[in-house]
Amino acid sequence: MANVSKKVSWSGRDRDDEEAAPLLRRTARPGAGAPLLNGAGPAAARQSPRSALFRIGQMSNVDLDDELLDPVSDLPSPVPCAHVPNIGVSNGVLSPGLQSLDYDNSENQLFLEEERRINHTVRPWLVPRSSTPRVGLVAGAGSATWDCRAGLVPPSCPGVEYIDKFTEKGGLSFSLLLWATLNSAFVLVGSVIVAFIEPVAAGSGIPQIKCFLNGVKVPHVVRLKTLVIKVSGVILSVVGGLAVGKEGPMIHSGSVIAAGISQGRSTSLKRDFKIFEYFRRDTEKRDFVSAGAAAGVSAAFGAPVGGVLFSLEEGASFWNQFLTWRIFFASMISTFTLNFVLSIYHGNMWDLSSPGLINFGRFDSEKMAYTIHEIPVFLAMGVLGGVLGAVFNALNYWLTMFRIRYVHRPCLQVIEAMLVAAVTATVAFVLIYSSRDCQPLQGSSMSYPLQLFCADGEYNSMAAAFFNTPEKSVVRLFHDPPGSYNPLTLGLFTLVYFLLACWTYGLTVSAGVFIPSLLIGAAWGRLFGISLSYLTGAAPAVGRGCPAGGIVRMTLSLTVIMMEATSNVTYGFPIMLVLMTAKIVGDVFIELDSLGLWGCGSGGTSVPFLHWEAPVTSHSLTAREVMSTPVTCLRRREKVGVIVDVLSDTTSNHNGFPVVEHADDTQPARLQGLILRSQLIVLLKHKVFVERSNMGLVQRRLRLKDFRDAYPRFPPIQSIHVSQDERECTMDLSEFMNPSPYTVPQEASLPRVFKLFRALGLRHLVVVDNRNQVVGLVTRKDLARYRLGKGGLEELSLAQT
Amino acid sequence: MANVSKKVSWSGRDRDDEEAAPLLRRTARPGAGAPLLNGAGPAAARQSPRSALFRIGQMSNVDLDDELLDPVSDLPSPVPCAHVPNIGVSNGVLSPGLQSLDYDNSENQLFLEEERRINHTVRPWLVPRSSTPRVGLVAGAGSATWDCRAGLVPPSCPGVEYIDKFTEKGGLSFSLLLWATLNSAFVLVGSVIVAFIEPVAAGSGIPQIKCFLNGVKVPHVVRLKTLVIKVSGVILSVVGGLAVGKEGPMIHSGSVIAAGISQGRSTSLKRDFKIFEYFRRDTEKRDFVSAGAAAGVSAAFGAPVGGVLFSLEEGASFWNQFLTWRIFFASMISTFTLNFVLSIYHGNMWDLSSPGLINFGRFDSEKMAYTIHEIPVFLAMGVLGGVLGAVFNALNYWLTMFRIRYVHRPCLQVIEAMLVAAVTATVAFVLIYSSRDCQPLQGSSMSYPLQLFCADGEYNSMAAAFFNTPEKSVVRLFHDPPGSYNPLTLGLFTLVYFLLACWTYGLTVSAGVFIPSLLIGAAWGRLFGISLSYLTGAAPAVGRGCPAGGIVRMTLSLTVIMMEATSNVTYGFPIMLVLMTAKIVGDVFIELDSLGLWGCGSGGTSVPFLHWEAPVTSHSLTAREVMSTPVTCLRRREKVGVIVDVLSDTTSNHNGFPVVEHADDTQPARLQGLILRSQLIVLLKHKVFVERSNMGLVQRRLRLKDFRDAYPRFPPIQSIHVSQDERECTMDLSEFMNPSPYTVPQEASLPRVFKLFRALGLRHLVVVDNRNQVVGLVTRKDLARYRLGKGGLEELSLAQT
Repeated sequence: MANVSKKVSWSGRDRDDEEAAPLLRRTARPGAGAPLLNGAGPAAARQSPRSALFRIGQMSNVDLDDELLDPVSDLPSPVPCAHVPNIGVSNGVLSPGLQSLDYDNSENQLFLEEERRINHTVRPWLVPRSSTPRVGLVAGAGSATWDCRAGLVPPSCPGVEYIDKFTEKGGLSFSLLLWATLNSAFVLVGSVIVAFIEPVAAGSGIPQIKCFLNGVKVPHVVRLKTLVIKVSGVILSVVGGLAVGKEGPMIHSGSVIAAGISQGRSTSLKRDFKIFEYFRRDTEKRDFVSAGAAAGVSAAFGAPVGGVLFSLEEGASFWNQFLTWRIFFASMISTFTLNFVLSIYHGNMWDLSSPGLINFGRFDSEKMAYTIHEIPVFLAMGVLGGVLGAVFNALNYWLTMFRIRYVHRPCLQVIEAMLVAAVTATVAFVLIYSSRDCQPLQGSSMSYPLQLFCADGEYNSMAAAFFNTPEKSVVRLFHDPPGSYNPLTLGLFTLVYFLLACWTYGLTVSAGVFIPSLLIGAAWGRLFGISLSYLTGAAPAVGRGCPAGGIVRMTLSLTVIMMEATSNVTYGFPIMLVLMTAKIVGDVFIELDSLGLWGCGSGGTSVPFLHWEAPVTSHSLTAREVMSTPVTCLRRREKVGVIVDVLSDTTSNHNGFPVVEHADDTQPARLQGLILRSQLIVLLKHKVFVERSNMGLVQRRLRLKDFRDAYPRFPPIQSIHVSQDERECTMDLSEFMNPSPYTVPQEASLPRVFKLFRALGLRHLVVVDNRNQVVGLVTRKDLARYRLGKGGLEELSLAQT
Repeated sequence: MANVSKKVSWSGRDRDDEEAAPLLRRTARPGAGAPLLNGAGPAAARQSPRSALFRIGQMSNVDLDDELLDPVSDLPSPVPCAHVPNIGVSNGVLSPGLQSLDYDNSENQLFLEEERRINHTVRPWLVPRSSTPRVGLVAGAGSATWDCRAGLVPPSCPGVEYIDKFTEKGGLSFSLLLWATLNSAFVLVGSVIVAFIEPVAAGSGIPQIKCFLNGVKVPHVVRLKTLVIKVSGVILSVVGGLAVGKEGPMIHSGSVIAAGISQGRSTSLKRDFKIFEYFRRDTEKRDFVSAGAAAGVSAAFGAPVGGVLFSLEEGASFWNQFLTWRIFFASMISTFTLNFVLSIYHGNMWDLSSPGLINFGRFDSEKMAYTIHEIPVFLAMGVLGGVLGAVFNALNYWLTMFRIRYVHRPCLQVIEAMLVAAVTATVAFVLIYSSRDCQPLQGSSMSYPLQLFCADGEYNSMAAAFFNTPEKSVVRLFHDPPGSYNPLTLGLFTLVYFLLACWTYGLTVSAGVFIPSLLIGAAWGRLFGISLSYLTGAAPAVGRGCPAGGIVRMTLSLTVIMMEATSNVTYGFPIMLVLMTAKIVGDVFIELDSLGLWGCGSGGTSVPFLHWEAPVTSHSLTAREVMSTPVTCLRRREKVGVIVDVLSDTTSNHNGFPVVEHADDTQPARLQGLILRSQLIVLLKHKVFVERSNMGLVQRRLRLKDFRDAYPRFPPIQSIHVSQDERECTMDLSEFMNPSPYTVPQEASLPRVFKLFRALGLRHLVVVDNRNQVVGLVTRKDLARYRLGKGGLEELSLAQT
């Protein structure tokens, strides 16, 4: 397993790492200032030659122990702690721009002091109270907008009324042109704002939120600008007639709102409301984002329980009962607020029982009982749904590959989006034109039937399918009486819509894939039912979401969402059966792991996403083989110059630095704590130097607030000016470092390390030898990288190139 | 905070622990066999004088370093690793009989070898496939039995038909006598089997399952015998007319079945089917018990989603997506199987849409819309429900205290149970007799109306309330048309039933409290609605479960269960609002934490239950103050005699032993691994001694199977014979110990330690100093004990005396 290079050259002799540490101690001379810190081997020097800092020479002017210098490199080492063989994992796979988030609190002295002081009973309930009514409000307002559009102008695209007019006059080609142009224009605007202003707003936003909750710092994902672009973009996509849904963007919006409100300020608008300062750290923000996502689901589908489960299934790693209650509360409030807004909008002020934005209509439970005969039918539907989902994913994967290679420039992306809009319009037009499937108007639930070439009192069935919002089409497919659909029309529509949805997903527009996949499922389920009733006379009524199950591969939360959105509990078992079968079958064809189609790798870079469990074959690997080494360590009292140089080192760009003991000749460099780049930056910015404080130049002690004020946009090291004099000062890190970082021995197996990361939300894990000396550092990226980088260990992620 | 005694006497001088370790090293003489292991201070000797083993003298005959001997005790120490001040936490609070479970896999060489070999794709899905259809089957069968009883004989107690008969003849006192006697007889049998055969079957079983999932080894909780007693017991309790429900026992039964099947054998029946041997460890068993509990909820309430949430809310600490899917699948299968069995039983073979055992009837969603006016009403109901719940809990707490003091003998417990049965019958009889509340028969949903003193075509309303199973009474209260109840009857019934349920809960019978509390809630909610309609004309229709919310203090899963059991999604928000208010209000009066009334302390002993979060005020404590010290360590190659002595030491009775390095004079005793008592026992039983293997006496290498065969009833050390010669042999623990146990530094704060325990399901956590020397061991019990033991840190648990 994993062809690990065990060979390391150490002063010309081959040694294994068991010998390396004693060697280090033996070569330490009495009187040498930092003998323990100069154990960097040639591997280290080779790996990052630019990071060599001349540290030892600068710091204490000791004689360099020549034995430790590699003949290849004349430079003394940077600041590693100890040495183990480097296994040479290449870093090329992962996107270098993506940082990780710190979901483990740095329990330094300041933190503990504050925790002892704070009133703990009031704080936690702020979470739902502050943020989520607004999520509901915004969702409600957004819904009202969209409903307006779909309700006041003829459904689904502004050109419809012209079509009817011009078609009657015989100006077919003109009406097609007008329609396609109008649609493309809307999509053009929607695509331009996404491609040029905020690319992270592309797609549904769910992958980004998943990655954020997983611990990947996706840039700009919870910013105000993203929210604005997202909401405008999705409106334009829907108006532009694309095969998209608005539910994913709504979930993303909920998260942004929650994250924004939790911070009590907007860095974009440069406004600080001086509230909620306690929440200004990654851990708390994550909780808010979870709650926001749950509130978004809750508002979108009227499914508060589904929202909680979505949030858990997609985000949380550590199940915390209290957090779950709060998320549940947030979801409920969100549903309630949305209901309230909608009830005012619909003029029925006091009726709060209307469901979410998507209402699949009520299924009468009595009529919908299923029998045991239908179980094999459900299973068959699940299998077919899984195959459909796999085909969808495979097509989309190839499309993504194509896009990464040829459509990577923003203007090309905009052109593609316009093209899709035009093709969608044209295909729909041609289908409608060639269709002669007319259905009687009475009994239909359509609000804007299109007569076209049909007789009076009838409407064009194909036009009805295309000219509704996907949500309304789903409802019609669920509820229209038997015989409303011609199998041919339905089959053609399913196929075309399937291909269109597949092409649309991944465009540089703000759009969700959930409702399109549900629509495909509903159309296809209806088709299946019709075919079956030809054969047996029975009509299976569920399983319509199965392609959705095959495509997005969620089972638990999707089942509950479907149950809640249809207000029907009885069908839980069949729905689950179908979704689970679809997922299992889909996994056989194309394994997407827990990410489903919603993989977070947008734009072709793989992200360091930690899955639920370590790869099953990974028991043969240990922490030693996964960790990064050599590690740049700092000492408890460290020269400012050294810290500045370490932070400025662009090659390594580390974010966590183990802090080791003061070195003297009697003791090896033992782990004392861990300090983060962001903390060091704040310390440097406030010039918290021992010398200054001795001279009385420091007005006040640094407080946790100073760290929070800088969060989350810590300035880069380049923007902090440190004079040559100040470089000679020292900084005492004791008070600010985390004195009890989590550690593992080198022998710990990869699943054990993985579990620790996943359960505790870690970003860094220090690997120590049995003397408590630092030998390596495992980061989130190391785990994700290893999994992806070593061939055969695990399948490649969707977006990996 | 927490008055910790920091003072320690060490050879007559006060030192702090920073000095202790260097001292240890300095006193280690060249040539001494185990110099690192003799650092036991006087505190250790004082604390456990019987555990002194003369170990050093026996082992290597070195001169004892007198400086290390305490003048108070002449005995040399046992095998401690290093020393820190003992803070003297008393052990008296916790029940000493309760061990903990190992939910962290011991990743020793054998384990890793097997993991690398095994086929991982097949295994996990065995979980639902193997166990849960049977859970559903058993639940279905059980239900059929109970339904028979309630359906074929007149409802709720066998005496009813006699009452009607004798009452008509005027033989009132005789019928009362007969009735009370019959009831008492049933309860007598039910109580006797519980009290004398299997006391752990008392109560609902939910606390025991919660404790099991939390990591407390409640003896016999998942045994076959328990299952049999539980099921017979609850049938007898229900037949005996007690104010009890059968849902809790059903959940317990589901867990037992799942746990039993997962093991592929029954130790009680001495049958081993040689299957599922992979699952024979605590970690896997826990997953099965979770799934079984979820399946139980699912079968009881027809609420698969509620089952999953119950399992998560009550048990799981680490949310694992894959496990959740499996649990969900199990729940669904359970519901399905139950439906199938019920549909056959009801003769309607093919209709699978019937809900769980409890069917609260369908609420027509259209009629049940609520308006914003009703929100304050819901809140008021929640507040009152919370107060009711708090009163219930307080009364029950006093009752429990009384029982612990005076009713602790089995025969007394049986007498009390009989007394309750007789009183229940008498009170009901008196109420019915004195009630003149007659209601017209038509429009009522009663199946066995009792006429008693009413006119023809009418029935006695009070008798109807008492002579139904609680489940049917709940349905009637939900669905009977307005005006069916006289407020006086309802009020009297609510009050009496409240007191009866309160007295009944905690009796030595097998019985659940969920349905009684729901019935109280329904009766009281109806009463509230009637009172309100006098005032305003409106009738609030929900919030009937609020006293249940106040009593059991679950919100999330209870809401979902209520939603699923009523097949109504619309009411989710009001139900949640009421339950959450009730919980918050209840917490103000009597804080029961996440245990609710279902605290696991049965019989007055506190159990080491780990709550969701560390006490909020615990940031001032560190691992050093919580840990047990001194720790008994073993060496990598250890004398058999030493191991036997350590294991035989009844004073300490430790279960985890840190393994340290071979000691020589140049190196301190660094942590190498952790080994469990159960592993040592198996090693001793198989006589895995270095000398025997060198002499070729060992036929084969020990495999993981040998450990699994002994699981879970490892023999006590006393049953293993070790001869005097064998005592001089050595054992090599390297292959069997866990080489990478989790460790924390002494400075780690208590919340950090707590999080580690909770997230990873730990039993032992080794505390090391910055030299990686063992200074202490935190066990689950230490955390639980500390929390309870130190006054003021946290409220006392329900059952603590």
